[in-house]
Amino acid sequence: MPKASANLENLYRIFTVPEGPDSTLRAIDQAIADDVAGFLQTHIVAIERNLEEIEADFSSCTIPEEPTYVSDYTEFVKENLVAQSVHTSAPGFIGHMTSALPYFMLPMARLMTALNQNVVKVETSKAFTPMERQVLAMLHNLVFRKQEDFYSSWIHNSQHALGAFCSGGTIANVTALWVARNRLFAPRGDFRGIAQEGLFSALRNRGAEGVAVLVSERGHYSFGKAADLLGLGRDNLVKVRTDSANRIDMQQLREEHRRLMERNILPLALVGIAGTTETGNIDPLDAMADFAAEIGCHFHVDAAWGGPTLFSSRHRHLLAGIQRADSVTIDAHKQLYVPMGAGMVIFKDPTAMSAIEHHAAYILRHGSKDLGSHTLEGSRPGMSMLVHAGFSIIGRKGYEILIDMGIDKAKSFAAMIDRHPDFELTSVPELNILTYRYCPQPVQQALAIASQGVRDAINTILDQVSQLLQKHQREAGKTFVSRTRLPIARYGQELTVLRVVLANPLTTGDILEAILAEQCEIVQDAEIRSLLQQIEEIMGKY
Amino acid sequence: MPKASANLENLYRIFTVPEGPDSTLRAIDQAIADDVAGFLQTHIVAIERNLEEIEADFSSCTIPEEPTYVSDYTEFVKENLVAQSVHTSAPGFIGHMTSALPYFMLPMARLMTALNQNVVKVETSKAFTPMERQVLAMLHNLVFRKQEDFYSSWIHNSQHALGAFCSGGTIANVTALWVARNRLFAPRGDFRGIAQEGLFSALRNRGAEGVAVLVSERGHYSFGKAADLLGLGRDNLVKVRTDSANRIDMQQLREEHRRLMERNILPLALVGIAGTTETGNIDPLDAMADFAAEIGCHFHVDAAWGGPTLFSSRHRHLLAGIQRADSVTIDAHKQLYVPMGAGMVIFKDPTAMSAIEHHAAYILRHGSKDLGSHTLEGSRPGMSMLVHAGFSIIGRKGYEILIDMGIDKAKSFAAMIDRHPDFELTSVPELNILTYRYCPQPVQQALAIASQGVRDAINTILDQVSQLLQKHQREAGKTFVSRTRLPIARYGQELTVLRVVLANPLTTGDILEAILAEQCEIVQDAEIRSLLQQIEEIMGKY
Repeated sequence: MPKASANLENLYRIFTVPEGPDSTLRAIDQAIADDVAGFLQTHIVAIERNLEEIEADFSSCTIPEEPTYVSDYTEFVKENLVAQSVHTSAPGFIGHMTSALPYFMLPMARLMTALNQNVVKVETSKAFTPMERQVLAMLHNLVFRKQEDFYSSWIHNSQHALGAFCSGGTIANVTALWVARNRLFAPRGDFRGIAQEGLFSALRNRGAEGVAVLVSERGHYSFGKAADLLGLGRDNLVKVRTDSANRIDMQQLREEHRRLMERNILPLALVGIAGTTETGNIDPLDAMADFAAEIGCHFHVDAAWGGPTLFSSRHRHLLAGIQRADSVTIDAHKQLYVPMGAGMVIFKDPTAMSAIEHHAAYILRHGSKDLGSHTLEGSRPGMSMLVHAGFSIIGRKGYEILIDMGIDKAKSFAAMIDRHPDFELTSVPELNILTYRYCPQPVQQALAIASQGVRDAINTILDQVSQLLQKHQREAGKTFVSRTRLPIARYGQELTVLRVVLANPLTTGDILEAILAEQCEIVQDAEIRSLLQQIEEIMGKY
Repeated sequence: MPKASANLENLYRIFTVPEGPDSTLRAIDQAIADDVAGFLQTHIVAIERNLEEIEADFSSCTIPEEPTYVSDYTEFVKENLVAQSVHTSAPGFIGHMTSALPYFMLPMARLMTALNQNVVKVETSKAFTPMERQVLAMLHNLVFRKQEDFYSSWIHNSQHALGAFCSGGTIANVTALWVARNRLFAPRGDFRGIAQEGLFSALRNRGAEGVAVLVSERGHYSFGKAADLLGLGRDNLVKVRTDSANRIDMQQLREEHRRLMERNILPLALVGIAGTTETGNIDPLDAMADFAAEIGCHFHVDAAWGGPTLFSSRHRHLLAGIQRADSVTIDAHKQLYVPMGAGMVIFKDPTAMSAIEHHAAYILRHGSKDLGSHTLEGSRPGMSMLVHAGFSIIGRKGYEILIDMGIDKAKSFAAMIDRHPDFELTSVPELNILTYRYCPQPVQQALAIASQGVRDAINTILDQVSQLLQKHQREAGKTFVSRTRLPIARYGQELTVLRVVLANPLTTGDILEAILAEQCEIVQDAEIRSLLQQIEEIMGKY
């Protein structure tokens, strides 16, 4: 790239925002906006170049010595980054939870960057602090539906916070379990609390052998990280078996709890899931709340995905019991349609977060309204603004339409798959997520009556088919589904399946039809054909 | 606000990005840009309204039922948010680490939002994955200066990561200590490692009574959170006393370590600071590296603030020894001038992060290049793009000028304070941070000869003066310094002092002169005058 020169004058210039209709900034903004618009029109998911080729453009490991002109760098970005990125908002990109954004998020996010507030403290965020508190209260209200006087006394309370804004669902889940852990081992008698004395001392003080979190085997992988990080150990993340609908099996839960008791391991938290990552199912939250009350342990609901279902009059009953949780995670960058980097955790008890409260001499002083005294993270951007914008511009009713539309679409896609002679539905959508695989009807019929050995042999090959199909489809760059491994009850076996997330309002029935048609074409590929041939041979033999 | 209607047509419209020169999006972008430009010109730090008044605009706790027009919401934002935010990029805002941004960060950040990549996995980030790996390698190179073949084998390695992008320095520090903890208690014999078995089992396995982190008393408050979160307990964050220059006292460090040994507590990590948050001092990193090697413990350097000093040929020697660290934290949203929300941690050993590696069935599969398998966070935005932009457009030489300029400015401001009859320098700037207080020369002279009792009495009143001075200055909204509490060697006492961070290249000597002049005016306020009167009375009596 042509080099600019490093001198004071140039530096002053780049630190002075050149606003105004004819400014360089406006020109660059426009060039990039046009380029992105072009990208969004011409590319569907990703361009053809493979990762290794792209890596060549990012292989120098030395920070450039000389400066580069902004215009030259913009060209580089257009060519090497925009064109080589993934069009996550494409209506045919239905494989992951990253969806389309409402357009107003762009100017709002740019404003957030321009103001560059730091919400860790009021001194660098002013109005962003009450706004974040308001958004947390609104979310609290959506979930826990307390009285108005509850909110008027807690919303802007300088001692407490109703929850925390986080960079994502992982930090939200970690925060929830951190609070639960510190409350379980609160100061008592001579014991000054786990925050002060640590986990070793806490367990010794209780005479316990360990402390565990119970969640279904469909639980998000962040709980494994949390168990590791918080010192519990992954062994103490008890993954409870699910029923055929991917919901926690209450009998198994009791059983696992009994086993913990026998081993003198304390239950730290019971985690219910409202929208499993892979299949979008919802645990029996009411029954779990009963059980958590019975064993006296923290009840956390991971509603990172499914939380916004509460906007829907038709579907909110699916989450019945969530209002009995002690803490709830909801990701704004999922079904609140906020850009990447916005998770939230809320606590029913407005004083719960004092278990992780902290202070410093230069900020977060006692009695200040600084949000940082109750967050895991320190300096943070004013992302709550984007949630506030979504709540205001889309409104509860707008979100309701989006939620209802996604669930309806999933149900109709499931019916489409069921009707199709070459596909097999592997999880029925409860919300807007489903899984399926390529498995022609004759194979399905053969599997239904085959011996376990034959069934295993066929399914092993079908796993390879699913894997290759997903890979080829991704590489073709027109549409995208993801894949995962799931135990499928009817086969008593874990299978590789295709996973679909239907949150983009622009995804139409026609697009879904086209995706199945494309997949039928992809399986004509020689490698996949030969795998399917192998299956036919096996079927022929028995 | 006037309400729009919630219907499908309107929803489709807001999810379709209306690009093009005459689009609504362009119009709103422009309205907001003009408004921000106006704000940046007319306001200096913050407008007059107090927090309680602002809270009234954010007091409803119900998510609006009906949608709002984007244009109406934009008006709301201009009036209630932009006008009520803190102008953190003002040249007179010298109290916190949030500084001016180079203007190109705005279009780049908007692009990041528009593409909405999720760098947890390649499938939703493509080119952003190699770019992030490149930025981490560049930073690794800046600190550890390995050979080129080291980088060519590790930069895009699918098994390992040279570091992690984080939402900020707190997560970076937590990640460093998490890795250190898991490496200290790695699998050994029957023990399957702390990640698996947890801290209780790990300590029992070693027959130890606890595990501790050693850091100076100037250490950032995130280490307290980390000690709590990781299960060590805040008691086991040993805060070692510092010398009069706010650097860790090596004698005290040895002493604290000896005490831990006596109590059978294992040292987990020794933390050196390159740029203390409150005073900008640098620990003797070489001596600390020696000691860490001697006791065989992880050496982490928190260079969140000071790391970019390595860009400066004149000043990088101050950080000598940092290349011997096992891990280093550097915040991009500080002296790399990236918008809020970008921290990084790098590890000398390219395999170190396998201690916290994790996988899931639907992403982060073994052998994938997904960045998420080695990060504490899950879904994350492509912030590395903004660091990449900074490295490219500003260049090493540009950053060098910025660093040198900040340090020079701090030294000249320190001289200005020293010369001024009414102020007392309370920490000499090593980098671009200093502290001082209002303390007229006669009072300084009296303090120098006063008995401990009189000195205490005067200093207690001066603390109130500092506090009020900082408060009034903030409320006046023209300029801003922060305040903290610091032990001041010459008085053998902890004092409230004013804190100044000089990272904004637009802050001139004239502005600094004006700030001192403004403070001399503020102390004419009745309440402060009466405090100063009390000091005169005390001085008169003795």
